[in-house]
Formats: sequence, structure tokens, C-alpha cells
Amino acid sequence: MKKQVRICMIGAGRVGRNHSNAITRHVAQGKIVALVDPMESVRAETATDFGIEYSFDTLEQALDKVEFDAVVITTPTPTHLPIAALAAEHGKHVFLEKPMALNLAECDAIMAAVEKYKVLLQVGFMRRFTPEFVAAAERIEAGEIGTPMMVKSNTHGPGLPPLWARDLRTSNGMLAEVNSHDWDTTRWFMGSDYLRVYTEVANFKGAANNPDIPHFYDNVLVNLKFESGGLGLISGVCPCGYGYDARAEVIGEKGIIQVGSLNGQAVVVCTNRDQGLITPITRTWPERFIWGYIYELEHFVNCIQTETTPKAGGVEGRWAVAGVLAGTKSFLEERPVYLKEILGG
Amino acid sequence: MKKQVRICMIGAGRVGRNHSNAITRHVAQGKIVALVDPMESVRAETATDFGIEYSFDTLEQALDKVEFDAVVITTPTPTHLPIAALAAEHGKHVFLEKPMALNLAECDAIMAAVEKYKVLLQVGFMRRFTPEFVAAAERIEAGEIGTPMMVKSNTHGPGLPPLWARDLRTSNGMLAEVNSHDWDTTRWFMGSDYLRVYTEVANFKGAANNPDIPHFYDNVLVNLKFESGGLGLISGVCPCGYGYDARAEVIGEKGIIQVGSLNGQAVVVCTNRDQGLITPITRTWPERFIWGYIYELEHFVNCIQTETTPKAGGVEGRWAVAGVLAGTKSFLEERPVYLKEILGG
Amino acid sequence: MKKQVRICMIGAGRVGRNHSNAITRHVAQGKIVALVDPMESVRAETATDFGIEYSFDTLEQALDKVEFDAVVITTPTPTHLPIAALAAEHGKHVFLEKPMALNLAECDAIMAAVEKYKVLLQVGFMRRFTPEFVAAAERIEAGEIGTPMMVKSNTHGPGLPPLWARDLRTSNGMLAEVNSHDWDTTRWFMGSDYLRVYTEVANFKGAANNPDIPHFYDNVLVNLKFESGGLGLISGVCPCGYGYDARAEVIGEKGIIQVGSLNGQAVVVCTNRDQGLITPITRTWPERFIWGYIYELEHFVNCIQTETTPKAGGVEGRWAVAGVLAGTKSFLEERPVYLKEILGG
Amino acid sequence: MKKQVRICMIGAGRVGRNHSNAITRHVAQGKIVALVDPMESVRAETATDFGIEYSFDTLEQALDKVEFDAVVITTPTPTHLPIAALAAEHGKHVFLEKPMALNLAECDAIMAAVEKYKVLLQVGFMRRFTPEFVAAAERIEAGEIGTPMMVKSNTHGPGLPPLWARDLRTSNGMLAEVNSHDWDTTRWFMGSDYLRVYTEVANFKGAANNPDIPHFYDNVLVNLKFESGGLGLISGVCPCGYGYDARAEVIGEKGIIQVGSLNGQAVVVCTNRDQGLITPITRTWPERFIWGYIYELEHFVNCIQTETTPKAGGVEGRWAVAGVLAGTKSFLEERPVYLKEILGG
Repeated sequence: MKKQVRICMIGAGRVGRNHSNAITRHVAQGKIVALVDPMESVRAETATDFGIEYSFDTLEQALDKVEFDAVVITTPTPTHLPIAALAAEHGKHVFLEKPMALNLAECDAIMAAVEKYKVLLQVGFMRRFTPEFVAAAERIEAGEIGTPMMVKSNTHGPGLPPLWARDLRTSNGMLAEVNSHDWDTTRWFMGSDYLRVYTEVANFKGAANNPDIPHFYDNVLVNLKFESGGLGLISGVCPCGYGYDARAEVIGEKGIIQVGSLNGQAVVVCTNRDQGLITPITRTWPERFIWGYIYELEHFVNCIQTETTPKAGGVEGRWAVAGVLAGTKSFLEERPVYLKEILGG
Repeated sequence: MKKQVRICMIGAGRVGRNHSNAITRHVAQGKIVALVDPMESVRAETATDFGIEYSFDTLEQALDKVEFDAVVITTPTPTHLPIAALAAEHGKHVFLEKPMALNLAECDAIMAAVEKYKVLLQVGFMRRFTPEFVAAAERIEAGEIGTPMMVKSNTHGPGLPPLWARDLRTSNGMLAEVNSHDWDTTRWFMGSDYLRVYTEVANFKGAANNPDIPHFYDNVLVNLKFESGGLGLISGVCPCGYGYDARAEVIGEKGIIQVGSLNGQAVVVCTNRDQGLITPITRTWPERFIWGYIYELEHFVNCIQTETTPKAGGVEGRWAVAGVLAGTKSFLEERPVYLKEILGG
Repeated sequence: MKKQVRICMIGAGRVGRNHSNAITRHVAQGKIVALVDPMESVRAETATDFGIEYSFDTLEQALDKVEFDAVVITTPTPTHLPIAALAAEHGKHVFLEKPMALNLAECDAIMAAVEKYKVLLQVGFMRRFTPEFVAAAERIEAGEIGTPMMVKSNTHGPGLPPLWARDLRTSNGMLAEVNSHDWDTTRWFMGSDYLRVYTEVANFKGAANNPDIPHFYDNVLVNLKFESGGLGLISGVCPCGYGYDARAEVIGEKGIIQVGSLNGQAVVVCTNRDQGLITPITRTWPERFIWGYIYELEHFVNCIQTETTPKAGGVEGRWAVAGVLAGTKSFLEERPVYLKEILGG
Repeated sequence: MKKQVRICMIGAGRVGRNHSNAITRHVAQGKIVALVDPMESVRAETATDFGIEYSFDTLEQALDKVEFDAVVITTPTPTHLPIAALAAEHGKHVFLEKPMALNLAECDAIMAAVEKYKVLLQVGFMRRFTPEFVAAAERIEAGEIGTPMMVKSNTHGPGLPPLWARDLRTSNGMLAEVNSHDWDTTRWFMGSDYLRVYTEVANFKGAANNPDIPHFYDNVLVNLKFESGGLGLISGVCPCGYGYDARAEVIGEKGIIQVGSLNGQAVVVCTNRDQGLITPITRTWPERFIWGYIYELEHFVNCIQTETTPKAGGVEGRWAVAGVLAGTKSFLEERPVYLKEILGG
């Protein structure tokens, strides 16, 4: 029998709770032994809800008091580098939520730390573990639709992210905090890196939601040109109100593949023929990607048990950050931006 | 150029209006030259709406005054035999709505008349002309799903049929007036005749709708055993309120085929994530089978132009009547009924 | 923190492996500490695959050597009573696969044993824990579609059950081994007990599969009349080859609710316009009901942790057995059978 | 009774045949009395197939020999202006296929001619007559999804257009010949004019298909910014091989609306659980928009009968041409292009 992996959960907010729930109920090979969050009330509630024995203000305290094998970092993006580096330094494997970091220098520092201390790094691209996305990727790689020519990926979310996550002064805004997954998915499905990016944004609800945020946008369309010659589209709407909507579509030389649907559950109801059929929509991201979260965390735990490199790591995380930076520069400067402007070299 | 077929429409009620609309707008090779209905106001409205030049109380008058090639009979079932026989006697081709007649003797008399006067007879089984039903039948006949083992067909309709059509003293009730199509479809898809029938009925809304009708039912489930050994199911609900619902499913030794869906239109709307996705349902039978009606009437017209025997004729109509009689006897006597009890011989 | 529930898995066959996988990977609050199966090679493979520490020929040996809280019984139906009774006698909570037993006397004996020894009993009706079935039941109970008038439930499975499970001399055949869930689901959704049952069966592949089994059937359609006046349908096809197909539909006075679909995954592919769109189908029952299995076993474990009565117990199991017995008598005697003939009283 | 409208069909190619079929079979209020096409064999076949009495090399000949009320122009784009102007001059109403013309000056000349001679002009935007598109537009206009924020529209077609239609030296290429409808649909659904356009194109199959065509592309993604602030996307793939794929999606402040689907027919087949479910896809544009073609031509005929201005006229046609010109300029110059650069003023 393999040894259960002991985890320190860092962050007791929305993502921290989601991952704690996934591990505590459905990843039997992992166990959360400690919780870290500076806000005591939030921390206490999460610890109680998921039966986590120890909880602390800081990772330093947890490192001092409890034995564990790995950290799962779900705190705001600006904290990713210091926390990941500290964990790595203490020999803890690192599961890091997306976006990996604010810029490429931070990505590089994180990758250097995990390499130096020989710990595993996984970035939270759960779509890479979501059964229908995995099946699509496998079918594309098997050549079923031929060479990919065009890829589309969207994330439309019902609620506003926290304030820091939609302000370009403290984060990279929606393109990073909501659409990170689309950057990763389009690159994954296309099997090629981005060459050039053009972005249009719109602000429809900003006056109501964010009176003082410069460059706030709640709608974004990114036009991608890949190194392969292929085209790509990323679409973001947040808040969209109608549900959590994450789908993708790839057109290859030989065919099309669609991934995901708006349907949240195989239930159809009709009680009024003038209204029509009603089907549950996926309401939230925890519902939409429940298997993605379970499988990515199970994968992380299994990689630790078997000393294997996780599938979605620093390279993937860094590319998504580079895309976000190019996309943001594009709408600020109202022109297409080449990745080489961001990556240098 | 072929000569446009001149039609006398008999019956200006719901079905008469539906067929007049189909011919006047979308069957360019036919033309309604006369309308017959004893109710003057109904007749006048229908004649005006569809630009029909002549209208009469009786078929006799129409025969006397106007030249035409064919009749389309949409009047109540008990009138089918006398009208069809009179039309045939005058050399008019006959399109006859389902159910063909009240009993097998009437069916036989209609078939004898059209044979004697060498006119064409088509029975209004429009599912045999509805593209998805036709495609399914062709795939079954081509052996795609192997020998059919089980067939299911349902018709659930939103509104009550007219009083005469739900009273066993004046018609054969819902099994005939609503589910005639299912009798025909199950036999068509199974490629075999019924051997034995067992029927359960229920009456949920009868107290409100039909206080004085004995044996009224608004739900019916018929269990069929075919000569081939296959099984069948007919399901009827009327009034069901939620829309017009007509689907079928066949399971063969090698696979399954499903025909139809509740979706009425390729539109999906969501404005409330707690409610979910909304898709129009087919509200009414004219919508649901719009192509079936156009194609069956175009087929009738083309058969006349080319002197060809129509695809759905007296034999099909008679079998459906036989099934209805067996199904009704079954629930009245609470036992399985063999078709040979109905067919004799 | 709640204490993890220690489980002895009884049966290392298909169902035993499925449940072992569910618990070992995804029910973190339970732990399989022992495995019982008389076939050593099967047992060894399952124990290895799921990291189960101890394994034994018999439950007696397990009881003697290992401490545990509960058994999960996945062995053939005829063994259910002796194993369940022995476990109960030793104070172990009992999770029992469907069908509960071969006859009502065995059901009664199991219920008496768990009552006497004050242990919990759950019967493996995982549809009662499958999200879309649960959602449908809640919507029906909330009155969304009004009083249920008609309920349809089908289970069509791709592979033949083991020989004992399709022979009426050693089991109750397909109606029990495949369609037990449909008996339970129709009764659950209708909110009423069966009054009368009529069954038609067909044998299409028997000559190839089962030359020597009397009364073998591979297709079954059951027509149900409920105490409430409602109608029901159970459909079974096994082996059907095309996938694992389990759906339900309920029509109430105010509307319709459909549960389940053939679609196995939100992926659509098209590479040939003459063939059309391809969508994965659910291939197997473990895939189809993956959440049902996880949630029913998590429910069992949580009930033990919190000393709560499980939702699907002996009463539900016994009713399904009664339905099976009536349905079987019906096709053997070619007549509708009242439940009172089976239940006596 | 209204007088049947007499039509001269100009062009006996793919679109001419499609419209001849629609009128001859399903637009009973119209009648094709003459066919014009300079290629005699094509003309003869079309005339025979649809029973058209007279056919000619040129419109001049038809005007000279036959009486008619209107022309339906389906010839290549460069011929639109001279033919439309000649027809108008002779008092014939004009139905003109999309794209309206090659440039804005031609559009203006056509609009001036129909105005001068007081004839009706309809441009062939059949999506404006396709039931699901109409229903969506009505729901958007009724405010159901709030102010539109983002609109997406795609046309992916299976076959290459004729050579002239994909060469920028003789047409405006795919953006015009395939995606004209998307220009119109996005503007219609957004309820606003284009402000700015950015286009990326790709050429995957050009080497095989078009060795000598400069700037050939078979994939295009257009990013639109509307005057309203809204965003838009047009996607084109041609040839795509997998079917005829035309869908749209609009996200408003309050919700989402999706229009169209890949499903071609309500038939689902499964015979191999490893392959999965098979559903017919729409194979061709005549199938996909069969109702759009019937209804737009019926609308044209009814407008003539009732002296009403058609819904999709010169203004709509001209805007689509302006969008095409901006989109083409964008990919040639690799920058966003403002509509004011095209429209002047």
C-alpha cells in the first residue's frame, strides 16, 4: 500500500475550499493535515468544514509545527512566488494555482526554486485533467481531425473575481484570472506556441461594478496566430450572470471536435410549452470542473507517491503568463503584439 | 411541365386548415380549387385565409360545380367511408386523414371503392414522409441496427381532441385519434405485424374534462408482441400540456436508433443560472410535422401527376385500425388480446 | 475529525472491483481493510490493484482476524441472506448489492437480522444517489410536474450477465439482475406502489448465447399499473451491444421530466459529413453511474459515522423483489399479475 | 386570390438551381417563367429539372420575349450591377444574391437604379428568414438577454467556392463569398454598426488547392468592435470537409442566446459502443437553410404582391460589403482597420 500524501493547504478562500473539499472527500490517497490563511475566521470555518486538524497564519508556522509532504497554494497571484519558493526550500512539493505568477521573471524564479530543491511543481490547469478535454486532446494527437487549423476556447463566469484580480495595477485582470485556462487550452490543442496576439475588450458593467479601475473590461476577444500558422480565439465574459460557461472547439484539416457544453446535468423539464424545455446549466466552476479538480489533485498526489513529473508544470504556466502579457499589451496599444516582444530573445 | 393538380379540400377545421396552408403555400404543384364544410362561418374563414375560390356545404355540390382531380378528406372519422366512396365513384383521387375508419368493414369498403373506380388512395400517415422518420426507416431496412427487437413510439399532445374523438361511443378514442400514427410507425419500423396487444389506461384529468364519458382515459401504454417475436410500446398522453411530443426508438440486434426529440428549434437561451437553459419545444402538431404534411401532400400530388401508387395506402390504414380495436378490447377486458380475435380468419 | 470507516469487501468480481475502486480512490472517509472471495486468483488481483492489506476465503475468517465496521456484499444473489445475516450477527453494518434476495422470505430474514443486531442496512440502488436522478426526484416531489401520471425507465446493458444471473433456475433473470434499478426507480418517481404488472419478453440471441436455458429472454417490456392509478414502463435489453443505456422519463399532470441521456461525454467529433457527428456513448455501468457509486458508498460511510439510517434500505429492496416476482409470473402465465398475488395478505 | 408572381431566374448554377427548386416546389405564390444563363447545357438541364418553359442566353432576350414581374439574380458578383440595373430599368423587381457587389460604388449604383425605377430590391440574406435566426433576433430585440455585449457567427463550408470566388483579383474572396452572411448576422444581432475590424487568416490547403492565387486563405477569424462598444467574431473555414456549419451566439448583459447547431436531423444511431452515437450533420447549405431560402423567396413574392419593402435590402447588403473590404484590408496590412477608412466621410 502506498503512503497517503500529507498536504498543507495554503489559502482558505474559494479555491482553497474547493480543493479542500475535493481532497477530503474524493482524493483518498491525500490528506490535508494543515491549513494556512492569515484571516482567522475564514481559516477556522474551512478547517472545521473539512476536519483539518491544524491551522496557522503563515506557512512558516506550519513548517515549524506539522509534518507534511506538499503544499497546495491557492492564494492571490502576487503571493505565488514567495510561498512557492519557501515551500520548495523546505523540500515540499508544490501545487500552484493559475495564473502561475504576475510576470515571466516570477515564473522563472519559481521554476528555478523547484529545480534547485528537487521538488515537484504542478500548475492548476485542471482542464488538462477534465475527462472531455483529455479525450479531445488524445483524439487530436491521434490525428483524428488532421492538423489543427483553428481553435476556440471560452470562459464566461457568473461572478466578479475579487477586486485585486480585476485591477491591472494588482493583477493581469480577467485575461489572467479568468482566461488563463483558455491560454493553456488553445496552446495544448493547437500543439503550437502563440506567434501574435490581437485583443479587443469592452466594458459594459464597469460603471456599476468598478467606478475607479482604469482599463477595466468585462468582455474580451483575443485573436491568436500560432507559430504553426493556425488561428485561435479566446473569449472571456465576466461577470456574465447566466452560468459558468467553458467550452472549446478545434477545426482541423479533416474535421471538427467540440468539447464541453452548456448543459449542467442530464435533466430536461418542460411544464410550459410557451417557455419550452429547461435544462440545468453549470452554475459554477466547482461544479463545471469537479472531475478536473479531483483528477488534477489525485495526479499530484500520485506523482508524489511515484516520484513522477506532473503533466502541467512550469513551462505550461509560463506560456500562459506570456500570452496574458501580450494580450494585455495589445488592447492597451490597440495593435497586434508579437510574443517575441514579450519573450525577448 | 406537369399539370397542377386541382384539389377539393373537405373539412375546414384544424386539419383542413393545416393542409390548406401546406398546399397553398408550399405544395406548388397542387392547387385547392374548392372547399367543402357544412359550417358556413368556418368554411368562409378558411376559404378567405387561403384564397380558395369556391366553397360548398357538401361534396355533392362541389362535384356538380367545379372541376377537380382529387379530394383531401379531413372530416371526422365516421364520415370517412361515405365521402371517400362518393369521391371515388366520381373518379376523384382520395387523400384520407387517419384513422382510416371506425372498423375493418369500413376500411374494406373504402378499399373496394377506390379499387373499383381506379382512383388513388393515400392515408394521412405523414410520419412516413417526415425526413427523420424516413431516414430511420431506411437505415433500419438497410440493416444498420440488425433485426429490430424492440420499438417504442409515443404521441403526447397538448390539447384535448374534440369531444366526439375522445368518446368510445363515437370514435375509438385516443388510441385511434391520437395514437394512430404510433400504430403505423411501430409496424413500419418493426417490419412485422402485431401478434398480441396488452393495454393499460389511466384517467387523471377526466373528472375535470369529461364528467360523463364512460371509459375515458388520458394516458395509455400499449405493450405489443409482433409476429416476428419483437416487442413494441405505444405511449399516449392527451392532454399533456407541455408540448407536442412524438418520438420513436428502435433497438435491433446490432444497435439503437432514436427518431425525433423534444427540441422544437435550434435556439438555446439562458438568463438565469438557477433556472438553466431554455430551448423551444415543439408546441403543436402542425409545427412538429410541417415537413411531413408538405411532403405527404406533395407525394399525393406527384402520384396523381405520374399515376403512381402512394406509399401509405389502405393496407397501412387498415392495420392501424385493427391495432386500435385490439388495444381497446384489451383495456376493456383487462387481458392481452390477439390480433386474430380482431382480424378473424 | 470523524473516524474513517473500516470496510470488509465481500466479492472480488466485477461489482466488488468497481466498489473497491470507488472507495479506494474517491471515498476518502472509508477504507477497505479486508477482502473476501473464495477464488484465490481473483481475490489476489483485486487486493493488489486496490492495495487491500488482508484477504480471505470467507467472511468468517475475516471476522476472526481483522477489525472492521462494515461489509459491502457484492456476491451472487443466492448468497446475500447468509452473508448479510452473519455480518449483522457480528455487529457489522451491511451494504448489500441489488437484487436484495431471491424471494420475499429472504428479504424478511435479512431485515429481521439487521433489526435484531441493530446494524445499518443499505441496498445498492445507486440511482438514488446519482445527481440527475436525485435532482429529478426532488423536482417531482416539489410538485414541479404535478402528480405523476406515467413513468418510464430502461436499462439496456452491453454484456451478458454471468450464467447464474440469466437462468431462472438460479436467479430471477434479467428482470432482477439487470432491471432491479428500474423497479426501484419507477416506484420512487411515481411515489406509489405497483398494483398490477404485465410483461412481454423476447428471445433474439438466446440460441447463440444460451442453448439450454428454459425461459431465457434478452428483451423485456413491463407494463405497470400503480396504486395511484399511474402507469409505468420498464424496458430491458441485455445484451444490447450498443452501450450502457439507463434513462427515465416521468410525465405528470403539469409537465415532463427526462433523466439521463445516451451521451457519455461532452465531446462531439465530425470528420465525415456522410457519416455525421460522433459523440461518445456511455459504454459501461461503472462509467454511467460513477457518481452514483461514489455517493452511495460515501452515504453508507457517513451514515455509519453519524448513526443515521441509510436512504435506500430493506423496504426498497423488498419491493423491487416483489415486482420482479410479479413480472416473471406474468410472462410465464401470459396474463397481468396483481402484486397482491405475490405479497399475499 | 392574389396573382402568382412571374419570375425570371438569372443563373442556372448551384444557387440558381437551389432557388429554382425552392420556388418550383415550395413557393406556390411564385412561378419561374424564364431562365437565363449563357451556358447552354447548364441552362437546359436546370430548365428541364424544374419545368421552366423558356430559357435564354441573356436577360435582354428574356425581356424581349417573356412577360414577368421580377428577376432572381444568382450570377457571379461582378455581374450584379449590370444585370440588376437592366432589370430595374425595365421595371422588374430585383432579388439579388449576396454579396451585393464588389465595392461600395457598385452598391450605390444598384440602390440608385431600383430607387429611380421604383422597383423592389431584396438581398439574399436568407438567415434573416431562417426560423431560429428570426426567433433569436426577436428575443434579443425584446430585451430578453439585455444589451448585446458579444456576438459570434461562423460559416464553415464543405466545398471550395468556384475559382473566381476565392481569388482576390476577381472577388473579395472567402470573407465575401462565404462569410457575407456573418457580416450581416453580427450587425443584425448586435443592433449596431462595425467600428473597427481586425482579421487573421491562414492558408492550410492552398498549396493543394490554389497554387497560383496570391493571398489565398482557407481560414479566417475576424475580431469586430462595434459602435455600441460591443465585440464580435466572424469565423470562416472553407473548405472544411466535415459539413456545413453555420451557428451564432450572442451574450448580452443578462444572458446568452445560441442559434443553430451541428445536428442535421433528429436521428441518433449507435451500433458500436467504442465509436459512440452518430447523428447526421447538415451536409450542405441548401439543406442547412432550406426554410431560409423558401421563406426569403416567399417574402420577396409576397412583397411584390402587396407592394411592401423587403426586409433585407440595399442598406444591409452595402454594410456587409463595407465589412468585407475592411476585413480584407486588415489582413493585408496586418493592423486593425476602422470602417471610416472604407466608408470615407
